[in-house]
Amino acid sequence: MCELLGMSANVPTDICFSFTGLMQRGGNTGPHRDGWGITFYEGKGFRTFKDPNPSCKSRIAELVQQYPIKSRAVVSHIRQANRGGVSLENTHPFTREVWGNYWTFAHNGQLTGYEQLVTGRNQAVGDTDSEIAFCWLMNQLEIRFPVLPEDMTPVFGYFAECCDTLRQLGVYNMLLSNGDYVLSYCTNNLHWITRRAPFGKASLIDEDVTIDFQRETTANDVVTVIATQPLTNDESWQKMVRGEFRVFHFGETVYHAVAADANAC
Amino acid sequence: MCELLGMSANVPTDICFSFTGLMQRGGNTGPHRDGWGITFYEGKGFRTFKDPNPSCKSRIAELVQQYPIKSRAVVSHIRQANRGGVSLENTHPFTREVWGNYWTFAHNGQLTGYEQLVTGRNQAVGDTDSEIAFCWLMNQLEIRFPVLPEDMTPVFGYFAECCDTLRQLGVYNMLLSNGDYVLSYCTNNLHWITRRAPFGKASLIDEDVTIDFQRETTANDVVTVIATQPLTNDESWQKMVRGEFRVFHFGETVYHAVAADANAC
Repeated sequence: MCELLGMSANVPTDICFSFTGLMQRGGNTGPHRDGWGITFYEGKGFRTFKDPNPSCKSRIAELVQQYPIKSRAVVSHIRQANRGGVSLENTHPFTREVWGNYWTFAHNGQLTGYEQLVTGRNQAVGDTDSEIAFCWLMNQLEIRFPVLPEDMTPVFGYFAECCDTLRQLGVYNMLLSNGDYVLSYCTNNLHWITRRAPFGKASLIDEDVTIDFQRETTANDVVTVIATQPLTNDESWQKMVRGEFRVFHFGETVYHAVAADANAC
Repeated sequence: MCELLGMSANVPTDICFSFTGLMQRGGNTGPHRDGWGITFYEGKGFRTFKDPNPSCKSRIAELVQQYPIKSRAVVSHIRQANRGGVSLENTHPFTREVWGNYWTFAHNGQLTGYEQLVTGRNQAVGDTDSEIAFCWLMNQLEIRFPVLPEDMTPVFGYFAECCDTLRQLGVYNMLLSNGDYVLSYCTNNLHWITRRAPFGKASLIDEDVTIDFQRETTANDVVTVIATQPLTNDESWQKMVRGEFRVFHFGETVYHAVAADANAC
């Protein structure tokens, strides 16, 4: 299994605090030794830092923890390899340009029968189930919506349907972003929390670090963090249910659906 | 104008020495203040570090200079903006997946009439002439070769033709790589040097740094560096001619062509 971390915010926000917690799970408080990656969007552009080495020992992870890159959309992942060897091309997140946007994807879980997924123009470079699922997902969307419509509601509806299909292949917990929206899908393990005024303090589970968000934010800030497991032990995280699809924009939920067959899974 | 830096080597090699020289031109010994980027391939995967801020002041550039990432193929760029604003999405290099490979591109020069280029499935995310030229180039190649043939000779021939077409639109100096091959094209400013045994010493033009390659290499290493202007003052760099297209693989030239109309340009 792997761990996911995402963020959606209405102002450029640094994710150093949450990232510090996550990185400890990469070989220290957790067994995720097989690489890590993080993508920060800034406008329509993005920066990805990744490393096939354990995050708790990575010099690049250290830079990311200390250097506060401010972003409104972040997707991050630490890996414990199951499908696909330990290599840079198999390290999440994966990015593809579709509709003139960069889409960035990370997956937690394991799929079977994924080799049959038709990925069309988007070919996988590595050999993970995750990258193939991502390429299939974007191919399905591009076929259905050759041009991105202004009203995203039907697009989100179709994203949710496609994620439901992938859940039939196994465990599919997902984060996906184009820098504007952060899309999340849960099979069994995904939590989120929205922080807004009045801000309080929070303490990391994985390291002895406490932050006072009051000092780091303004009264209008809305910041949602999404993670496989809660990262703090003194806040109330929302647990997503099986088959739940949730889209965040500027920190707020803008689309929400739960698969009709979710209870039957 | 911008500056390009590329490397092709037969063993994973760090580019810290050359990168140190290039980075000084980003706002210190040169006027290229509008961002920088570098892509390192490792296997089929890649890592890109980029920043829209001047390279001579960038904390991320500092990490890249000090942290020897070893690679057989590198593409780097520092920017002085002409077409397109200063932003992360307009910062080179640009990467797209085509034929199940990541292709990474950087351009030096300025084009006119580029808005007419048909980019097909590969849409530009930013608004530079460079990214549109790259998307057009990959679209042309994909239409001509829906599947990448085993023998790359006709593919390189067609790449050269397409680069000649782009040269008709203005100044087009280019570096392009899929991690295996490093392709270069010259309109007016591109130099290269191949270092092999017996290795000597070299001194950077832009900073007071000398390296003894003898101490850093083994007898079988072959390393080619390609740059807009020579980076060292005590070695013989080859100047490429107008309309020249050259492909490097493991440090050696494996394809070479000069446009028939080159003298007429």
